[in-house]
Amino acid sequence: MSDYTPRPEHKFTFGLWTIGNRGRDPFGEFVRPPLDPVTSVHRLAELGAYGVNFHDTDLVPIDAMPAERDRIVREFRGALESTGMTVPMATTNLFTEPVFKDGAFTSHDPQVRAYALQKTMRAMDLGVELGARTYVFWGGREGAEVDAAKDPVEAITRFRDAIDFLCEYAIDHDYPLRFALEAKPNEPRGDIYFPTTAAYLALIPTLAHPEMVGVNPEFAHEQMAGLNFVHAVAQAIEAGKLFHIDLNDQKPGRFDQDLRFGSESIKALFFLVKLLEESGYDGPRHFDAHAYRTEDQEGVWEFARGCMRTYLMLKSKVQQFAAHAGIQELLAEIRGTGHTRERYSRERAEHLNAQTFDRAALASRRLPYERLDQLIVDLLLGF
Amino acid sequence: MSDYTPRPEHKFTFGLWTIGNRGRDPFGEFVRPPLDPVTSVHRLAELGAYGVNFHDTDLVPIDAMPAERDRIVREFRGALESTGMTVPMATTNLFTEPVFKDGAFTSHDPQVRAYALQKTMRAMDLGVELGARTYVFWGGREGAEVDAAKDPVEAITRFRDAIDFLCEYAIDHDYPLRFALEAKPNEPRGDIYFPTTAAYLALIPTLAHPEMVGVNPEFAHEQMAGLNFVHAVAQAIEAGKLFHIDLNDQKPGRFDQDLRFGSESIKALFFLVKLLEESGYDGPRHFDAHAYRTEDQEGVWEFARGCMRTYLMLKSKVQQFAAHAGIQELLAEIRGTGHTRERYSRERAEHLNAQTFDRAALASRRLPYERLDQLIVDLLLGF
Amino acid sequence: MSDYTPRPEHKFTFGLWTIGNRGRDPFGEFVRPPLDPVTSVHRLAELGAYGVNFHDTDLVPIDAMPAERDRIVREFRGALESTGMTVPMATTNLFTEPVFKDGAFTSHDPQVRAYALQKTMRAMDLGVELGARTYVFWGGREGAEVDAAKDPVEAITRFRDAIDFLCEYAIDHDYPLRFALEAKPNEPRGDIYFPTTAAYLALIPTLAHPEMVGVNPEFAHEQMAGLNFVHAVAQAIEAGKLFHIDLNDQKPGRFDQDLRFGSESIKALFFLVKLLEESGYDGPRHFDAHAYRTEDQEGVWEFARGCMRTYLMLKSKVQQFAAHAGIQELLAEIRGTGHTRERYSRERAEHLNAQTFDRAALASRRLPYERLDQLIVDLLLGF
Amino acid sequence: MSDYTPRPEHKFTFGLWTIGNRGRDPFGEFVRPPLDPVTSVHRLAELGAYGVNFHDTDLVPIDAMPAERDRIVREFRGALESTGMTVPMATTNLFTEPVFKDGAFTSHDPQVRAYALQKTMRAMDLGVELGARTYVFWGGREGAEVDAAKDPVEAITRFRDAIDFLCEYAIDHDYPLRFALEAKPNEPRGDIYFPTTAAYLALIPTLAHPEMVGVNPEFAHEQMAGLNFVHAVAQAIEAGKLFHIDLNDQKPGRFDQDLRFGSESIKALFFLVKLLEESGYDGPRHFDAHAYRTEDQEGVWEFARGCMRTYLMLKSKVQQFAAHAGIQELLAEIRGTGHTRERYSRERAEHLNAQTFDRAALASRRLPYERLDQLIVDLLLGF
Repeated sequence: MSDYTPRPEHKFTFGLWTIGNRGRDPFGEFVRPPLDPVTSVHRLAELGAYGVNFHDTDLVPIDAMPAERDRIVREFRGALESTGMTVPMATTNLFTEPVFKDGAFTSHDPQVRAYALQKTMRAMDLGVELGARTYVFWGGREGAEVDAAKDPVEAITRFRDAIDFLCEYAIDHDYPLRFALEAKPNEPRGDIYFPTTAAYLALIPTLAHPEMVGVNPEFAHEQMAGLNFVHAVAQAIEAGKLFHIDLNDQKPGRFDQDLRFGSESIKALFFLVKLLEESGYDGPRHFDAHAYRTEDQEGVWEFARGCMRTYLMLKSKVQQFAAHAGIQELLAEIRGTGHTRERYSRERAEHLNAQTFDRAALASRRLPYERLDQLIVDLLLGF
Repeated sequence: MSDYTPRPEHKFTFGLWTIGNRGRDPFGEFVRPPLDPVTSVHRLAELGAYGVNFHDTDLVPIDAMPAERDRIVREFRGALESTGMTVPMATTNLFTEPVFKDGAFTSHDPQVRAYALQKTMRAMDLGVELGARTYVFWGGREGAEVDAAKDPVEAITRFRDAIDFLCEYAIDHDYPLRFALEAKPNEPRGDIYFPTTAAYLALIPTLAHPEMVGVNPEFAHEQMAGLNFVHAVAQAIEAGKLFHIDLNDQKPGRFDQDLRFGSESIKALFFLVKLLEESGYDGPRHFDAHAYRTEDQEGVWEFARGCMRTYLMLKSKVQQFAAHAGIQELLAEIRGTGHTRERYSRERAEHLNAQTFDRAALASRRLPYERLDQLIVDLLLGF
Repeated sequence: MSDYTPRPEHKFTFGLWTIGNRGRDPFGEFVRPPLDPVTSVHRLAELGAYGVNFHDTDLVPIDAMPAERDRIVREFRGALESTGMTVPMATTNLFTEPVFKDGAFTSHDPQVRAYALQKTMRAMDLGVELGARTYVFWGGREGAEVDAAKDPVEAITRFRDAIDFLCEYAIDHDYPLRFALEAKPNEPRGDIYFPTTAAYLALIPTLAHPEMVGVNPEFAHEQMAGLNFVHAVAQAIEAGKLFHIDLNDQKPGRFDQDLRFGSESIKALFFLVKLLEESGYDGPRHFDAHAYRTEDQEGVWEFARGCMRTYLMLKSKVQQFAAHAGIQELLAEIRGTGHTRERYSRERAEHLNAQTFDRAALASRRLPYERLDQLIVDLLLGF
Repeated sequence: MSDYTPRPEHKFTFGLWTIGNRGRDPFGEFVRPPLDPVTSVHRLAELGAYGVNFHDTDLVPIDAMPAERDRIVREFRGALESTGMTVPMATTNLFTEPVFKDGAFTSHDPQVRAYALQKTMRAMDLGVELGARTYVFWGGREGAEVDAAKDPVEAITRFRDAIDFLCEYAIDHDYPLRFALEAKPNEPRGDIYFPTTAAYLALIPTLAHPEMVGVNPEFAHEQMAGLNFVHAVAQAIEAGKLFHIDLNDQKPGRFDQDLRFGSESIKALFFLVKLLEESGYDGPRHFDAHAYRTEDQEGVWEFARGCMRTYLMLKSKVQQFAAHAGIQELLAEIRGTGHTRERYSRERAEHLNAQTFDRAALASRRLPYERLDQLIVDLLLGF
């Protein structure tokens, strides 16, 4: 059993907002009392987590006076030090306040855009002060319900300007930060700009400091659009841009559920853990999820425990997969030896053009995917 | 009424496979007889179209002997010349034949990959011979049902290798071609690689010849995933990569319907037409759709007529929008005068950081989107 | 223009919760101040509405003392009387309070179930006192995230028991009420029991008082699951069970948007208005929607105006449809004269069995749906 | 291992069309040769299946002469007898032929409706001749793309007439058949009538012979609409109407995939097996799925083996669930002792109305669903 007990070396992190989620939803009020950040740090440390992440206002209330801010930061830092917990990532809340109701960096209002920059700079200061090395941007209000009102080309320009500005702010202050952009297709806006991880991967090469900026894919967000998350993360990895990851669970085609990791999509998340573990990704395994609204505070800790445990169980399945002779033989048969890469030359093209291919023979090659997939189901079910 | 009569200057094109669709589906057989390409050219010309596009095997059967190929091409060219129709785009069918059942450029089998290159080179030759300036790649079989079997990182590498190879082939032969990559999330594969237009936008900067390669977004394909197509096209335009476009219609979250343009998503397609017309896009307006399976051949021409007519009706609505005083006043109010762009300097950052923002005042700014959106509904309904 | 000005005879109603929606969502706080019910009645009356509907706690706060309740009811009744507004429908809020976090009528806890009955009986008293003739049940918390925990068979039994109990309460008190059950597939619960209108239509014949109970279909709710709402309402009509209807708009496959009626699904809602107007449905046209969160209070009234105006514009299109010679000719051709109904007799079966059908001839019958559908698009666009 | 070896007593059945699926899809041709029914029976018997089901034309080609029909039936019966295999279910193909392109029982054309009745009567004769006890109706073409063209109320009437007719045909011929109606939301039609299992449950009480008619829910079909299949089956069970079931797998919100049972939705299908096994359902476990198109014929048998094996593995998990002390304790805690049912009486209502409920206390009751659900994940993963 001990293999599935989380330890800091596993780099599991939670947002303060995840274990602190109080269960309000569009149709119901809070069901859990507020959870104080210091308590969160202590409880997560006891559970074996590696760190906590936060939005600025998760830690420091938006209207806190400087003295209150300092006290909060001091106590929070004390909790980190006494537990050995880290803050690998920080981010800005640019969505809760009514001022952001029509966007932050992409708002029509230059004052709102300016305030969003200010809020982010201050939040970056706070994050760096507490040790963050990754800074996440989720533009939850950057979007539209009415496509007449906002120019979607201009929205891209404005968003780029903001990221360029903030990259330079980080550089100018010698902040050891990398930025990670997090996509979501919709909710709370009818349509959010940059709806997929790939939309941000396409933006990054056009930034002033592309080397500083990567992505923070979130399982639930691609899943809402029914997209294959493993493929999205693979594209980020191939581009060298997987800077952070948000782990959770979700049923496709519905509201953002942020379910306990592994509670729904067992097979898809097995392949995600496999990809992460085998790709050399060594960043945090961050859970951006929350307990069911029916749960009390003890249930929240059960939820946190479950996220980590399921990750470790799936990781052990990944190791079994690698060691499974039947699977590896099938894979070798399926993958064959065809790893040669075609490079263009006139001769090679002429040679290819002159070849005769036996289409029927090529089509008849055995591809035992049903057998392979069944072995994976067996492995997942523990048979 | 004459304003809604298509003329070649409107640059409407159809694929041979669209008006030639014979109505087979997963549960039923062909309902319409084959349609000969020469007839298609003549009928489309009569209807006011600008051109036709094709997959290699839409025009020349896969097993045609050289003499048959030549005859077909000669007769097809004759039809083009006698009608003034053009072939702005060509593409390769890399999905119908069983040989491609597990992918073409991303197949495990180096012979299949080689054959896919050969088939594409020959199809490029054919396309260029008939005047094509855009070459589309839709990788309908590049994907997976079993994520254990194919490495999604390697799939990207293989796809990139193929595009690089074919770019060099085009360059080496002085072909006046630009490539346009077409994304789709699923069907016929469980998950297709590069599921969204943005996934290709992210790939392009990593190619050997990025300047030659853009995208061919298709409405139905983004719509299947419930994504906002106008936003996807806007990102392509902002990146200078809208090389071609596939117009049709579709209900979200279901099988690929390829419905008559404007038959379902009236409002979304109004904004698409607005974006295309106002962005300066001057490429073909290509309809990648087909008639209902219940239709006979005459119904196919009704379908084609309807695609073009609805585009023109929506285009006239775009002009009304621009001329509508009430809408323009609201837009001016909403968009304000805040077009200044923030550029980083230490002084600017310090200034911003020192500012005090009145959040409540900023949040209370009027954003009359309901009024604006209702005016658009009125305009669409003709009131 | 006056034809599109709402008047009480059009029977447009709004929930107090719709125009009173304050714009809170899962990621953001209230953006609009509370709206007092008396003001709502006056403003809606000015706009031409017929009535207002409410959840018990929309009108009377949950902890109101009897004197406060009486004052509120008196003032509300005064507003109704002075404006001529009606209360055609009332309902119970069984979802906001934490006590209902795991269901009301289907809760595991007999005390919660008992409280839900009490709250509903009192809300029925209130509704009847103010003139309601239809009583709606939306079981927003009757569902599950964890299918191990609740028995879905028992959930049906418990729900039936509650409806039977409350029917008898109404009968025993001579309340002139009919019940209307409202389905939703998910949100706020992972899965809500009775996810579709049809699920309730299937339940009703098993109730103790089926004649008292019908359905209240909501466009957005079926649309979330990508189902054809017109077909769902048609089944309710065919069963004599369309007791009420909730009108709004929604994009499929995402969170519950409750958009302004007709702001997205122009064509689908045209067919809905056609079905309602032509079926003889004479109940309220109730809008269960709310203004965009970006809107201020004036925008809320624009929203309400827009819902009604679009209904009337679509209704005028329905009249045009009926009067359109081209459409009616096509319909006559398509529908043919085949309205004979087969009734079984041994002779008829033998006769049928002995017939020879010319499949090819039958298959070749012209079905000009593309033409017909294009005429509808023309009509919708005002051409 | 032997526990997961299928045996006839497990009542696993396959359609001839499932193992005989030749891999054609909307974008590609057949990849597998035809599979002869006699071979299918033998191979399935070897694999441990209980029976095979068929559409009329799966067994007897549509244009077969009487002598050919007799030979086919004789040989097929011979295979059944020599293997001990059964034919528990039969059905009619009312979708492949162009004659049904706009519907069978709901076609506008009285000749098409008559032919559909004839074809079904003959197929019932064939099914009964071979031992079928359940007759399935899947109306794949009963639907519309154009809602102007067909009246959805009339469609219900026509469908009811057909079922009533055919019930009487069965009664008149003393056929020992029960009918099972199978719903699907879309594909091949844009929208299919009776889109959900519940839509048929609502129809049944309005039929002339409701006792003869139940439902045949299919996992993939409800899953396409993102609905909870276990809840749909539970409603069928509660109504005494689960006459047959179609098992397979599917990702939500996309084309009909008919994947190997248990290959995607491990947790949802665990709860389905649990419901079936614990409800006393003793009918066939019918797999309506097919092998990946990449598979050859041997792969088809792997696919069939996998369907049955996964069912048995999940069934053993169901037994573990029942025997798991930790899970059962939690369930007992969660479900409590509140199984009393409220029955109306004036006294009871008055008593309830007079009670004072402590909402806060009721809301604070512990509901350890996270803990429970994690135990289920552990159990599914074999930990």
